[in-house]
Amino acid sequence: MTRIFKRLTPVEQALSTYLEYLHPTSSEEVDLGEARGRVLAEDVISPIDVPPFHRAAFDGYAVRSSDTFGASASNPVVLKVVGRLRPGDESEIEVNEGEAVEIATGAYLPEGADAVVPLEFSRRSGDHVEVIRQVPPGANVDRKGSDVMRGQTVLTEGTVIGPFEMLLLASLNVTRVRVFRKPVVSIISTGSELVELGSELGRGKIVNSNRYALESLISDLAVPRYLGIARDDEGELGEMVKRGLDGDLIVTIAGTSVGERDLVPTIVRSLGGEILFHGLSIMPGKPTLLALIDETPLIGLPGSPVAAMVAAIEVLLPVLARLSGVNGVLQWPRVRARLDRRIASRPGVRHYVRVKLRRENGLLMATPVRVSGSGIISSLTQADGFVIVPEDVEGYEAGAEVDVMVYRRWLRL
Amino acid sequence: MTRIFKRLTPVEQALSTYLEYLHPTSSEEVDLGEARGRVLAEDVISPIDVPPFHRAAFDGYAVRSSDTFGASASNPVVLKVVGRLRPGDESEIEVNEGEAVEIATGAYLPEGADAVVPLEFSRRSGDHVEVIRQVPPGANVDRKGSDVMRGQTVLTEGTVIGPFEMLLLASLNVTRVRVFRKPVVSIISTGSELVELGSELGRGKIVNSNRYALESLISDLAVPRYLGIARDDEGELGEMVKRGLDGDLIVTIAGTSVGERDLVPTIVRSLGGEILFHGLSIMPGKPTLLALIDETPLIGLPGSPVAAMVAAIEVLLPVLARLSGVNGVLQWPRVRARLDRRIASRPGVRHYVRVKLRRENGLLMATPVRVSGSGIISSLTQADGFVIVPEDVEGYEAGAEVDVMVYRRWLRL
Repeated sequence: MTRIFKRLTPVEQALSTYLEYLHPTSSEEVDLGEARGRVLAEDVISPIDVPPFHRAAFDGYAVRSSDTFGASASNPVVLKVVGRLRPGDESEIEVNEGEAVEIATGAYLPEGADAVVPLEFSRRSGDHVEVIRQVPPGANVDRKGSDVMRGQTVLTEGTVIGPFEMLLLASLNVTRVRVFRKPVVSIISTGSELVELGSELGRGKIVNSNRYALESLISDLAVPRYLGIARDDEGELGEMVKRGLDGDLIVTIAGTSVGERDLVPTIVRSLGGEILFHGLSIMPGKPTLLALIDETPLIGLPGSPVAAMVAAIEVLLPVLARLSGVNGVLQWPRVRARLDRRIASRPGVRHYVRVKLRRENGLLMATPVRVSGSGIISSLTQADGFVIVPEDVEGYEAGAEVDVMVYRRWLRL
Repeated sequence: MTRIFKRLTPVEQALSTYLEYLHPTSSEEVDLGEARGRVLAEDVISPIDVPPFHRAAFDGYAVRSSDTFGASASNPVVLKVVGRLRPGDESEIEVNEGEAVEIATGAYLPEGADAVVPLEFSRRSGDHVEVIRQVPPGANVDRKGSDVMRGQTVLTEGTVIGPFEMLLLASLNVTRVRVFRKPVVSIISTGSELVELGSELGRGKIVNSNRYALESLISDLAVPRYLGIARDDEGELGEMVKRGLDGDLIVTIAGTSVGERDLVPTIVRSLGGEILFHGLSIMPGKPTLLALIDETPLIGLPGSPVAAMVAAIEVLLPVLARLSGVNGVLQWPRVRARLDRRIASRPGVRHYVRVKLRRENGLLMATPVRVSGSGIISSLTQADGFVIVPEDVEGYEAGAEVDVMVYRRWLRL
């Protein structure tokens, strides 16, 4: 009740301002085998043609297309078979006028040939082959460079290297790639009630669980560096924040609400930092703080676990994307579902309502899971996703069709 | 043209039979900090209550609710403030009749108290506080066990441990979890034309790029073990497949089409294995082969890169999910978009058409990228996703609204 912010800023507005102050990290070169999930720090220009040679697209006979002119079943052209090429063969064989080379899919097209007659349009007989259909130049051939041409820009800076980018880069015989350094994120938990995982839970103590969730959420994009738990003490927290300044981003957990022990804003100011935003129009997640200390960004996440998670998804991930040089927005699976209960929400604030999905008579239904209380951790694991109620909507009625942002990668729908 | 299969099986049908032969791997215990992305091999039963104690949900005063009966602004109840509790404090303080303890959000509720009067309904004056509104028992208190009760099953076998599961498990002070062992996937590339990344590309040689794509695609779920390139030689490939038999799954790349050098089916049979399916009604990806050698599954992926990728997504990932014990189906981001060109497809076969997404006048448009040729690797990186044309649909007209399976995690739409 005392957590009252004078002004709540919409997330997009806060982000668009905040991101302007942030830049991608420096770059480094890594082996392609280590580049999974990394972000290209420069355009990739192909050093070779792909395929690197004219290649048979079908099993058949490599020929000079001009030799097949007029060929038909009733009037076949007879060519002399002067050799055979399988993929990987390195023979110097050539196709001259009146000749053919037996060829398998994937083999390079021999000198002199400009087309392939597929097996089904051929009749072999000893060392001769009858061609029963004419082929134009280039027929059934994957031409050198038809996939990628040498010198072509194939991938652009900011691309995340997924399986398909791996496929392409390896095909180009690119062994090293220049990627942005993974940003180092200093994580600081605050709260005298926190103990580390595995400690005995004394009276009034709880496990510092936000740390694990956060590390798990960001480690695709960043290198989490956990600095520890700062008790509710200005000196202790201040020292930790200072230690975090040599990373690329500081994330504090808790201590951002408006109250006597909410130290993060105080410390940001005492270190000469600037608080750009404090109080976002999302719920849970309202007490999120976006600051800069010198040039180092500091994000103050709320201490309430669900609020911390929502703010991490909506604010921290886009910030990390910027620091990582990603050109793009994280895509979540989304489904349409029918609400089986009413969702209330306060206008002017965007609500994240956890819902469980299930199928009923073929219809996808969404059941809100305990809509109140941002401290209810189990609501996140019971649910499958969020119904996001926009600022200008006052809840949804039961039966309404809504979009659900599914936050599980694996789910039976 | 020679790659003709007698019968094409729909993927779902092939999978539902094949998966019946497969079982999750054995389980192992890992530290929670190492459990990211792993799959629970048993239900998790909470060892504690969460929160582990009655906890103040607001800043205010811990009181006996009965003391506040009838309190109002005009008729306040005056209580003696006997102490102060902040989160993490471990004092033995008690609240007796007529007493109150100043309390901060997150602190444990002291003995004797059963409710919290929020600050805004109180007026402090020295060591006394006036309560101006009555509170019922339990008011403004997060009750012990209100999130999770000790003994409650909080997560079930087969759940993938994401950030939210991490959050919950850490909150329960669970330090070790039993998860399924990551399946070991033996990867064998076949083809005499293949060379390893970084080799000089001799005439007719190409880089074994499928390996990198495959490793990247599966490494969230599995441990890739690359066995090398087998030339188109029965002995060499046979030896490699035998070496792969001590893993949980063998994946061969190429050599599954119907043709003279398509060795994988031959070798499966020569090792006493059984080919359950050969030829799926997907395109690209048709020559996919599903086999068992003794109890070890072998998936033969097509050699054509795009075909290998489609088959890996549609067949390999579900198989890995089964071996990993995942209870669920991989969810991809999907968007509705308008086709700006016609898509042709052959009935009876499910087509995967690569499309590039873009926004035009606020509408999401999908442009098919080079729909022919499963060898065109750059089509995958140029596109953002697949339009999947079902078996019973004969293509889509330009202007049609279609579902796009987005295969990028990061994309600006």
